[in-house]
Amino acid sequence: MIYFAIFYLTIFHFFPKLPRQESMAPPNSIAHRAVVEHLVRQSVYQRLSRPLPRAASAPNPLVVNVSARHCHLTQEAVEALFGSGHTLTPFKWLYQDGQFAAKESVTLIGPRSRVISNLRILGPCRTLNQVELAYTDAIALGFEIPLRLSGNIKGTIGAMLMGPAGFFEMPEGVIRALRHVHMHPDDAEFYEVKNGGEMQLKIGGPCALILEKMLVRVDKSYKLEVHIDTDEGNACNLQPNTPCELTK
Amino acid sequence: MIYFAIFYLTIFHFFPKLPRQESMAPPNSIAHRAVVEHLVRQSVYQRLSRPLPRAASAPNPLVVNVSARHCHLTQEAVEALFGSGHTLTPFKWLYQDGQFAAKESVTLIGPRSRVISNLRILGPCRTLNQVELAYTDAIALGFEIPLRLSGNIKGTIGAMLMGPAGFFEMPEGVIRALRHVHMHPDDAEFYEVKNGGEMQLKIGGPCALILEKMLVRVDKSYKLEVHIDTDEGNACNLQPNTPCELTK
Repeated sequence: MIYFAIFYLTIFHFFPKLPRQESMAPPNSIAHRAVVEHLVRQSVYQRLSRPLPRAASAPNPLVVNVSARHCHLTQEAVEALFGSGHTLTPFKWLYQDGQFAAKESVTLIGPRSRVISNLRILGPCRTLNQVELAYTDAIALGFEIPLRLSGNIKGTIGAMLMGPAGFFEMPEGVIRALRHVHMHPDDAEFYEVKNGGEMQLKIGGPCALILEKMLVRVDKSYKLEVHIDTDEGNACNLQPNTPCELTK
Repeated sequence: MIYFAIFYLTIFHFFPKLPRQESMAPPNSIAHRAVVEHLVRQSVYQRLSRPLPRAASAPNPLVVNVSARHCHLTQEAVEALFGSGHTLTPFKWLYQDGQFAAKESVTLIGPRSRVISNLRILGPCRTLNQVELAYTDAIALGFEIPLRLSGNIKGTIGAMLMGPAGFFEMPEGVIRALRHVHMHPDDAEFYEVKNGGEMQLKIGGPCALILEKMLVRVDKSYKLEVHIDTDEGNACNLQPNTPCELTK
């Protein structure tokens, strides 16, 4: 009964037209499904005068997103690849405020000369160049990549990037990003964890699994969001309606 | 101390020369690492007069193998692809007795005309044609595949296979195989599970995870072995020395 009510309210009350994840949109104009469900869940339990389950009493909804392979670039690299003075154009806004997938993509040429086309650039530009791949991608390219916290690229393998205006050589920076959860200090307090700690993510459905050793990253600018890669997302076939639970 | 002893005995006592997983070999001439470790662990604990931990007291070692994409074919399909009268040639013997990766591979042409080259055939021939892919493979091919128990292919999508002697059209049979564990009735008794039941596999290491809903398949001909696909294997970066634990 409760689940039906949640479904009904979600579909017909909040979304007269269902949002399309692929569409381009200004920041936060379309609420993430998990955000709407969180609000609806709280509202339904309140109306039915039933106590809130643990997940619904959290200060913020849990959003789990799969990061497909991508890169972060410096402005210098963007200009080498796309031309002098070029700036990235937002294609799709991401859940973390101000972050976006750019219209621009590059071709990655690995150390064994195998390529990955259409490697998406995430913006805005950063102070370092980093490529984040899944292990399946690295195997296809024919080399090994280390598991690293994003930003910690010292001593990692490099690659060549190719854009419409030229090449850019990365001497290092190809990694698999450590699975992690972004959260606000309010979330950290609710889950009783600290920055740098570890949590588990229990993912349901027919290919259910529990991801362990998920790094906690706490910052006032962060919204509660788990980032996993395509290997992890495909291992459990993560879909927008797959139940997820974050535990210590 | 115990771990060092296990390592020492494994490396120098049982393997004067380390086995190479890639090498071609007749059935069971080279023991799987997990098999040797299991024997060594039992022996070391016995010599040190210490009680056996739960895993070491199991009747059989736990072997976990990643199945990369592959296909099972009928003899009719093999002849259409490789020529009249052609039979599969073993390239590498698998852990289950009599099963092998064949020297022969085919090209898979998906419904959107994208291809996967060098799709390995597993032998011996079966009574049905089935292609087993990871979700990452299916996404690369541009279509969706269902999660199915191996052999249950009714109503699934098909594909075209191409070999050196011709084409073979599969009207159905492309699936992601349900993660599963093969076991002998002795193992089923030890783990207190039945054929068709479910277990969990806890995989350690830096990308640790727990795979749930692993189907139990019991048969007198089976050796204890978990089969996961490349998405699952890469999600946890499964290596020969990654600790694995099977639980109910």
